[in-house]
Amino acid sequence: MVNNKMYELGTKKSTIRTIFEFGRKRAAEVGEENVYDFSLGNPNVPTPDFIKEAAVDILTNMEPSAIHGYTVAPGNPQVRKALADSINSRFGMHITEKNLFMTAGAAASITICFKALSQPEDEYITFAPFFPEYRAFVESVGGKLVVVPAQPEDWQIDFAAFERLVNNHTKAVIVNSPNNPSGAVYSEETIKKLAQILQAKEKEYHHPIFIIADEPYREIAFEGYTVPYIPKYYDNTLVCYSYSKSFSLPGERIGYIVVPDTVANFEKVYGAIAGAARVLTHVNAPSLWQLVVGRCANMPSDISTYVKNGQLLYQGLVDAGFECVKPQGAFYLFPKCLEEDDYAFCKRAQKYDLLLVPGTDFGCPGYFRAAYCIKTETIKKSLPLFKKLAAEYK
Amino acid sequence: MVNNKMYELGTKKSTIRTIFEFGRKRAAEVGEENVYDFSLGNPNVPTPDFIKEAAVDILTNMEPSAIHGYTVAPGNPQVRKALADSINSRFGMHITEKNLFMTAGAAASITICFKALSQPEDEYITFAPFFPEYRAFVESVGGKLVVVPAQPEDWQIDFAAFERLVNNHTKAVIVNSPNNPSGAVYSEETIKKLAQILQAKEKEYHHPIFIIADEPYREIAFEGYTVPYIPKYYDNTLVCYSYSKSFSLPGERIGYIVVPDTVANFEKVYGAIAGAARVLTHVNAPSLWQLVVGRCANMPSDISTYVKNGQLLYQGLVDAGFECVKPQGAFYLFPKCLEEDDYAFCKRAQKYDLLLVPGTDFGCPGYFRAAYCIKTETIKKSLPLFKKLAAEYK
Repeated sequence: MVNNKMYELGTKKSTIRTIFEFGRKRAAEVGEENVYDFSLGNPNVPTPDFIKEAAVDILTNMEPSAIHGYTVAPGNPQVRKALADSINSRFGMHITEKNLFMTAGAAASITICFKALSQPEDEYITFAPFFPEYRAFVESVGGKLVVVPAQPEDWQIDFAAFERLVNNHTKAVIVNSPNNPSGAVYSEETIKKLAQILQAKEKEYHHPIFIIADEPYREIAFEGYTVPYIPKYYDNTLVCYSYSKSFSLPGERIGYIVVPDTVANFEKVYGAIAGAARVLTHVNAPSLWQLVVGRCANMPSDISTYVKNGQLLYQGLVDAGFECVKPQGAFYLFPKCLEEDDYAFCKRAQKYDLLLVPGTDFGCPGYFRAAYCIKTETIKKSLPLFKKLAAEYK
Repeated sequence: MVNNKMYELGTKKSTIRTIFEFGRKRAAEVGEENVYDFSLGNPNVPTPDFIKEAAVDILTNMEPSAIHGYTVAPGNPQVRKALADSINSRFGMHITEKNLFMTAGAAASITICFKALSQPEDEYITFAPFFPEYRAFVESVGGKLVVVPAQPEDWQIDFAAFERLVNNHTKAVIVNSPNNPSGAVYSEETIKKLAQILQAKEKEYHHPIFIIADEPYREIAFEGYTVPYIPKYYDNTLVCYSYSKSFSLPGERIGYIVVPDTVANFEKVYGAIAGAARVLTHVNAPSLWQLVVGRCANMPSDISTYVKNGQLLYQGLVDAGFECVKPQGAFYLFPKCLEEDDYAFCKRAQKYDLLLVPGTDFGCPGYFRAAYCIKTETIKKSLPLFKKLAAEYK
């Protein structure tokens, strides 16, 4: 009577949801301030004042129909020009408005790319640990998700494993850096090596293999870590961006896709993106927010809270005896569990009201994700509890 | 290399697009004020002040994270409650927040429904004239669109033709009233008859047949015409609503789906809708606009301009010798062309800079659509030109 796959996708309770409900129950019992919820990737840095000011100014001073009317399908041309100029000045690119397609955020951007590119038997490669929605999105357009096992010592890429998995069916490689959930930033060396391998594979298979760069965390990279702009290293790159994290606007659904001129058969790819956006009903990204991000294209993201929280949690975990790669970007740590079974470990952490997400959910068993986009005070108070938890394993 | 169907959908120039480009060219030559563009359904009544005031008040006085943070996937529960209360009081329904799923407008709502319901070999029935995107949306989920021929004398439903087309594969019937492009409102008698036939067919085929009520124009119904709330007449109705037209917010992408408790297997249908929204990346409709429409749920739509424009254009066309059904709702008239070939007729109208859309695009050859959501002054100035055009056929 309904599509069963959709029913399953809409009703299967996710681990994060289960943890969330446990957290709500415990908050009712012991008080909100005694629950340490590291489970959600909801930015806690307030939306910057310049965003509020831009939105209020636009609402107050512009003609309503110019704010709220339909834009052309790919988005307001002036906004796309402003964003293209900003990308050019920050990353040394040479794009124009015709290379941008405004979308309702990064998830919309990547599903549009999957829908635009997918032909029967296509495979999409991603690297563990990875954002679990990739699987639902890829399978929904009939594609197959292929996962390269993790390289836990530094969360860069296991290239030997990667090379074994690329084949003639590979349509695209999904790159997510700064990474959710590992908190790692792929180095320039990693991106160069990835580009080199893919260029060779493109020659071998006589067709383009795209990189889909999923970059909602691009602006959240810490001192000493630079996020390479992948189109500069690899021609067939589609960049999927979102303002959800950089400007703390996750609810407003605003972002874009960059399709550089260097992409093989640019017209064909951009056209297919327009068609995919149309049938996924993602033409015309929310119009007020298009205007706001157009105005604020060159404004900085305030990442100081994430820097402070990341260092505090990292040091606390290491002091408690956890193995963990240093925070590099985004707002996640991905430490090793103190027992093999990550579900059992996260269950045990709940005794201390520490809410952690098992790594298996991100394709990486034996680890856990701790999202530190929460109050600094909460992290401080949680550290003795992590110590107690670790003591159970000594 | 890309999905060719998506490429075609993204690049095939639509008739409206071609007309739009002609209009831009002519505006450059003869001046904006001498081009009579009846081609676009972009509301020209300004967004009401109460919308601006609500948005500015929310931005100024609420915590940014409460405005812009993620909502739960189906939308802010308080907003859904406010909208449910408003629907109950206006239409005598008994729904709660659990019956609503917030979306990015009516197009998103209906594609989510198609994706949620569709199983192999499903057919969707609609009535000519119809909104042409239905075909792209239905085919994109593997469904087949079946079109019931028009009943031009009153634009109600040709039930004999309809009954011949319903079969065991019919998953749903798409009802769009007030109608784009005919401007007709389906009467209570029409809806009752439709419900009666479908109830009999459900019994015959032993499975539910849904009505998908696509209602972006619900609030734009003129004196003497009432838009029946279809769930009151037929249990298996999903209502797809948008604030694009009623509050002149087409760019902001905000609307909802109503899934009443009376729908067969409610949990299954609502669950599938949640799954479809997830893979179409339509969870969490734009959060500021959720709050705004929640506050303004009971505010009136100002339709006075459409009433005035509709009457003026209707009278002018009739005086010029056109056959046309009286305006009932939305902001479209759908008169008979003065020659059989509607493309040739609309082409000839362009000589007078009258931009009209051929009815063939809406599955109804021999007619044309005139959207009167434009300046009243423009309509006044256009009437002598319609007379000249008509004179060519005398």
